[in-house]
Amino acid sequence: LDIPAVVISRLPLYVQVLEAMAQRGEQVVSSQRLGEELGVTPAQIRKDLSYFGRFGRQGRGYNVVELLQALRRILGLDREWRMAVIGVGRLGRAIVAYEGFAPQGFRIIHAFDVDPKLVGQRVNSLVVRDVAQLEETLAREPVDIGIVAVPPEAAQAVIDRLVGAGVRAILNYAPIAARVPPGVQVRRIDPVLALQTMTYYLKQGQEESAKEL
Amino acid sequence: LDIPAVVISRLPLYVQVLEAMAQRGEQVVSSQRLGEELGVTPAQIRKDLSYFGRFGRQGRGYNVVELLQALRRILGLDREWRMAVIGVGRLGRAIVAYEGFAPQGFRIIHAFDVDPKLVGQRVNSLVVRDVAQLEETLAREPVDIGIVAVPPEAAQAVIDRLVGAGVRAILNYAPIAARVPPGVQVRRIDPVLALQTMTYYLKQGQEESAKEL
Repeated sequence: LDIPAVVISRLPLYVQVLEAMAQRGEQVVSSQRLGEELGVTPAQIRKDLSYFGRFGRQGRGYNVVELLQALRRILGLDREWRMAVIGVGRLGRAIVAYEGFAPQGFRIIHAFDVDPKLVGQRVNSLVVRDVAQLEETLAREPVDIGIVAVPPEAAQAVIDRLVGAGVRAILNYAPIAARVPPGVQVRRIDPVLALQTMTYYLKQGQEESAKEL
Repeated sequence: LDIPAVVISRLPLYVQVLEAMAQRGEQVVSSQRLGEELGVTPAQIRKDLSYFGRFGRQGRGYNVVELLQALRRILGLDREWRMAVIGVGRLGRAIVAYEGFAPQGFRIIHAFDVDPKLVGQRVNSLVVRDVAQLEETLAREPVDIGIVAVPPEAAQAVIDRLVGAGVRAILNYAPIAARVPPGVQVRRIDPVLALQTMTYYLKQGQEESAKEL
């Protein structure tokens, strides 16, 4: 039952690629082909999937729809997850308006802000609540996931309050390395951090080109 | 010189934590303390840093500013990187307006769209160009990084054109697993994918709680 976190982190990519194949009406896929789509080796694909039982038959590939349904079930994507957004500035409003969540079973049911000018206003179909009512609201209508879109200096305190209110998963848009207790998941959405992992390679490439001249 | 990609991917987090410490006026930090801030072991910190030479002295910790400057230089964060955004719908406009890029040396110098109603309009201080002029514009004023914020069905073609125009790093906001040739870096910003890596653990936790009842 102790499946490496890196394997779990790859499964949503499998789901996405299989969904595209199912939409195109493809019925069977080889580990070779799946590997090409995902940029990993066929051996890695077979190893990843072996953690969850036996899929596919020797030399015949995987049934696309069966594998997709199994992976969605394993990942808990066959149900709805409820979310609250904290912070409805420019970023928070874009998150509330984002059309990609609902089709995948992620539904935002609460939006909070600290600014009295925003509280009571409508963002899409949600009425913004005062963040002072966070605990009270979540006790009455709990969520599974908290989305944090507040300024960096306010983020850790908001995360602590979400965890205190029983939230076990945080999607953190604030540029801080959030601290959470064991058993609480946190994922960071930070484009600057993603850019900073590429510049190392860009620099290497440019230094090599310069040497060749 | 072959430093594991996972080490490189952690360095921007080090930079971020060290920046916060430098701002608070902290002068020295132990690998113990750095590890706590980052959620890794002190041994991991020492091993990661050992790839890049000798930092700090036995039992005395690291000089915060020196380590920060060294890591920024290693990652290529001591210079400016130029970027182009392709797709200036709701998401693309939020990206162009995002205030977190410039202070870290990432500057958006071009914005492109395919929609004739958007071409010629101003988004922040940039005039939106027709994407038909992508190659011509980048030949004249090259960028290091392309930010892709177009619909999923258009994304791979845009990425292919950016790579063809010499761009070696792609920040991909479209929900597709982009294919790029060797030597080109691509990072994905996808909140749904991040959520889908947490639901597995949420589900496990809820099943355990149910068993305890």
